[in-house]
Amino acid sequence: MVSSLKRLLIGRPLKSTELGEQKLNKTKALAILSSDALSSVAYGPEQILIVLITVSTAAFWYSLPIAIGVLILLTALILSYRQIIFAYPHGGGAYVVSKENLGVNYGLIAGGSLLVDYILTVAVSVSAGTDALTSAFPSLHEHNVIIAIIFVLFITTLNLRGVTESASILAYPVYLFVLALLILIGVGIYNIITGHAPANLHTPVGTPIAGISLFLLLKAFASGSSALTGVEAISNAIPNFKDPAPNNAAKTLMAMGGLLALLFSGIVYLAYYYGITPSETVTVVSQIAEETFGRSFMYFFIQGTTALILILAANTGYTAFPLLAVNLANDKFIPRMFKLRGDRLGYSNGIIVLGLASILLIILFKGKTEHLIPLYAIGVFIPFTLSQTGMMLKWIHEKPNGWVSKFIINTTGALISLIVTMMFFLTKFAQVWPVLVFLPIIIFVFYRINKHYEAVGEQLRILSNEPAVPIEGNVMIIPVAGITQVVENSLNYAKSLGSDQILAVYVSFDREEEKKFEEKWKKWQPNVRLVTLHSHYRSIMNPLGKFIDTVHHKASESNYRVTVIIPQFIPRKGWHNILHNQSGLLIKAFLLYRKDVIITTVPYHFKK
Amino acid sequence: MVSSLKRLLIGRPLKSTELGEQKLNKTKALAILSSDALSSVAYGPEQILIVLITVSTAAFWYSLPIAIGVLILLTALILSYRQIIFAYPHGGGAYVVSKENLGVNYGLIAGGSLLVDYILTVAVSVSAGTDALTSAFPSLHEHNVIIAIIFVLFITTLNLRGVTESASILAYPVYLFVLALLILIGVGIYNIITGHAPANLHTPVGTPIAGISLFLLLKAFASGSSALTGVEAISNAIPNFKDPAPNNAAKTLMAMGGLLALLFSGIVYLAYYYGITPSETVTVVSQIAEETFGRSFMYFFIQGTTALILILAANTGYTAFPLLAVNLANDKFIPRMFKLRGDRLGYSNGIIVLGLASILLIILFKGKTEHLIPLYAIGVFIPFTLSQTGMMLKWIHEKPNGWVSKFIINTTGALISLIVTMMFFLTKFAQVWPVLVFLPIIIFVFYRINKHYEAVGEQLRILSNEPAVPIEGNVMIIPVAGITQVVENSLNYAKSLGSDQILAVYVSFDREEEKKFEEKWKKWQPNVRLVTLHSHYRSIMNPLGKFIDTVHHKASESNYRVTVIIPQFIPRKGWHNILHNQSGLLIKAFLLYRKDVIITTVPYHFKK
Repeated sequence: MVSSLKRLLIGRPLKSTELGEQKLNKTKALAILSSDALSSVAYGPEQILIVLITVSTAAFWYSLPIAIGVLILLTALILSYRQIIFAYPHGGGAYVVSKENLGVNYGLIAGGSLLVDYILTVAVSVSAGTDALTSAFPSLHEHNVIIAIIFVLFITTLNLRGVTESASILAYPVYLFVLALLILIGVGIYNIITGHAPANLHTPVGTPIAGISLFLLLKAFASGSSALTGVEAISNAIPNFKDPAPNNAAKTLMAMGGLLALLFSGIVYLAYYYGITPSETVTVVSQIAEETFGRSFMYFFIQGTTALILILAANTGYTAFPLLAVNLANDKFIPRMFKLRGDRLGYSNGIIVLGLASILLIILFKGKTEHLIPLYAIGVFIPFTLSQTGMMLKWIHEKPNGWVSKFIINTTGALISLIVTMMFFLTKFAQVWPVLVFLPIIIFVFYRINKHYEAVGEQLRILSNEPAVPIEGNVMIIPVAGITQVVENSLNYAKSLGSDQILAVYVSFDREEEKKFEEKWKKWQPNVRLVTLHSHYRSIMNPLGKFIDTVHHKASESNYRVTVIIPQFIPRKGWHNILHNQSGLLIKAFLLYRKDVIITTVPYHFKK
Repeated sequence: MVSSLKRLLIGRPLKSTELGEQKLNKTKALAILSSDALSSVAYGPEQILIVLITVSTAAFWYSLPIAIGVLILLTALILSYRQIIFAYPHGGGAYVVSKENLGVNYGLIAGGSLLVDYILTVAVSVSAGTDALTSAFPSLHEHNVIIAIIFVLFITTLNLRGVTESASILAYPVYLFVLALLILIGVGIYNIITGHAPANLHTPVGTPIAGISLFLLLKAFASGSSALTGVEAISNAIPNFKDPAPNNAAKTLMAMGGLLALLFSGIVYLAYYYGITPSETVTVVSQIAEETFGRSFMYFFIQGTTALILILAANTGYTAFPLLAVNLANDKFIPRMFKLRGDRLGYSNGIIVLGLASILLIILFKGKTEHLIPLYAIGVFIPFTLSQTGMMLKWIHEKPNGWVSKFIINTTGALISLIVTMMFFLTKFAQVWPVLVFLPIIIFVFYRINKHYEAVGEQLRILSNEPAVPIEGNVMIIPVAGITQVVENSLNYAKSLGSDQILAVYVSFDREEEKKFEEKWKKWQPNVRLVTLHSHYRSIMNPLGKFIDTVHHKASESNYRVTVIIPQFIPRKGWHNILHNQSGLLIKAFLLYRKDVIITTVPYHFKK
């Protein structure tokens, strides 16, 4: 039943050879890998205005030069990640770049912060989208948490079905959002050019403003840069592209950069020209849309696609997280299970862990994840800075043809990213300090896991110069609870192994019963030695454990191995198990983890 | 840590030989086994008045003859259960009596309804007590369910500590309640004799009342008889008494009967004399107490001990349920686990199941379990009727000395109990119908369980005339995942068992890797045959399962047994387990329940 539910939800399992068909073409890849970055346009420009308004609305003209700064950073990042894609065509992005060029520690800082970041992406974007949706239907507002969780479960299931299927479904809303914003910007600009828009609502560019400071401008710039989160996703997800993967990924990245630049600058310009003031209740995009179209169909179309894209931004996390996890798992910093491909060839453990972790965050913050946004932004800018710095070092070391221009691109990117990172720490410390706690903890855990895997590898390795101690013989211990077919079955098996040392062990709670049993045994199996252990405290485990210790001690002296043979009957129906005391299972679990003995289960399947 | 918490809660484990010290003397037994019956005094008389008031308050004088009827029933029940105690000194009460004399079906009806009844006892009495308590502290009222659950957990823990310890603690409130009611009745009667009580509040006995009917009187009688629930508990719990157990139990039963008769008739009489009218907000006992003492210390003392005894009435269930369960388990009608004695020599599984089931009821009914009372009353009167009828047949069959008087006692008891049972069905069908659904289901389950145990017993039995097929040899299959110490360890073990048929099996997901592995293996273990299985769907279980089936099929033809040897490394720390994929455990679980092969785990304990 579980299995057929699984089939219904995620579809039939795929052969490993079908992996090629699970690759993305550029159109689909652009949709699912840039939804995070593109959705940032919905709140990035607003962030700039929110900072500027602390001086005065007259200061809004500064949003134009700040936007140019953001565009420069965007260009640097896009060009830089384009270089990363070709330099590291197997994906892994900032983690791999930092690790290779700056050392393992920096790699782990980048990888750890991105790993956490993708969880935040999912939680924050789904919460924001749910909020946008329930604002339209206020009666649903109290069910925000449940609705958000349902969205996460939906996106998780979609991703478990495979990356192409989710891309096919999710591509429409992304392109509709892009279309909606392009129409908005186009009509807006047309109105301005044709003079249909009121021109007196904004201060001209260059108006001197009292009280403006470089610090404030940098703060506004850093806030605006939050629109750039998600730019790195493509570099993590190169293995998901159709061949030639790096070329396709690079082209997709350029397309995303172009779209992002266009939408971002368009929104900033319209907001400036219309003199829009950020408000607690209505978003900047909503104000621009209302100004342009009134409360018409287009207005609701823009609002609807915006809500959708906010939710779907989560999907970028679902594509990038599992691939980053594979890279970390290959280097033995996180559990191996992240390397397993599921039925539909996706890295399902990564997808499931991401889904569960973000559901946990949504529940913990009761769906109010807005104040996680700065944390989420800094979690991207730390890896941005590290990966660009890593690329700088790479060019210096390798000096390929035309390395100077590449070096300049990465240096620009690194410097601006560093400034943004520092601005976040300086201006929003109250919200971003957790990163200083979590990153060291995560890196500590990475190292602990790595140490364990290294230790395991060492202990598993076969050392040819150290021959194993030969096994001289085997002692077989059979715990028996009665004189039954199940026990006979096990005894016959033990005898068939040709061991000369078979010990039946009977744990008794009652002296009288004990004697009776011993007599019966002598008649039944006169050749098999029976050891009776009396248990004062009615525990089977304790006396049995002590007895096994004694036997084990003696056996080791002459290089004998000890095998405990457990006779176990298997009822025909699952519910029958509660009718039996399962001593067999308990003994097995106890012996496996506590004693150095071999455990053999001889099953006896009931026929009725 | 779990273990030390357990020690703290329930104390050190006791040796089986300390069982004698866990027996109850008469004083303690009276306290914990009669709390249920005695607590009924707090609501039984009220039930009579509630029925009579439907005619008029003038009809209240009928409560006196009705009370006499209840006393006759009580006498019959007490004498009858006294005879049951001596006839069945190993306990089991109504279940054993009905089973032996009326047949298994009637025994199961009696046993099944008592089993459910004790769960109801706990839920109903704890809820009622909690209600009484929170009526005094209204701010606690909204936390009723939580408080009730805490009481259940407390009583459960106390009982897990052992019956003597719970008796020592719980005896005080019971005797304080008896003392409080005795003082109340004494002072009340004294006031009446000395003329301090107003005499004009009641209609004289014998006043003709219009509209009274036999049906109504019988209904009032049945309701009043609910004060007799719990009378049977002592007969279930004989094994808990100090030797000579039957004598001590009989004396305790008589003492309980005497006390119950005294308190019941006292309360009925005072209620009649004071002309007390039942009210929704104040109980009859509370009205009598206020009439007698005003709102003095004595009033609050009576109210407080009443609330306490209502909660502690639950304890009777805790003493009787596990012993009844042992009887049913001995006859293989419920799971064997109810026969196991816990660390403190109590039947802890019974205690825990009772606690959990009543918590479930409290949660399901949100702490409002009042309308379960009729269900609970009928659940006692069905076994009353059956056990008395059983005793009647016993006397007829065995005809011991003086059997006629014994027969008369049981016949009286059986008839009155039958009338009460029928009155419940006639007058409160809306509340008692579930018994007609649950009893058949429970009895069906009893038989299903019994059938399974019988089938198991038959299959386990050794038939000397049918010699087992001899085992000609063993095929050993070792699933391997690499060339490691763990695998070497398992191979050496397989070789030491002298099998000529060792097959290493490697499940591969990747054709290239497969070839490499085969080559490496040939160099490492040229004498052990390696079988490579390619898994298209990246499942280990499916190809392995199919391979094992093939081998098993061939092996069976020549009476070979198949053993699957699982190399398993055991990490040194628990958390390390999540770093490994646990394929070993999964393969074991799969093979154990699905295939007829022997499963051997060769552990390899890591040292770091």
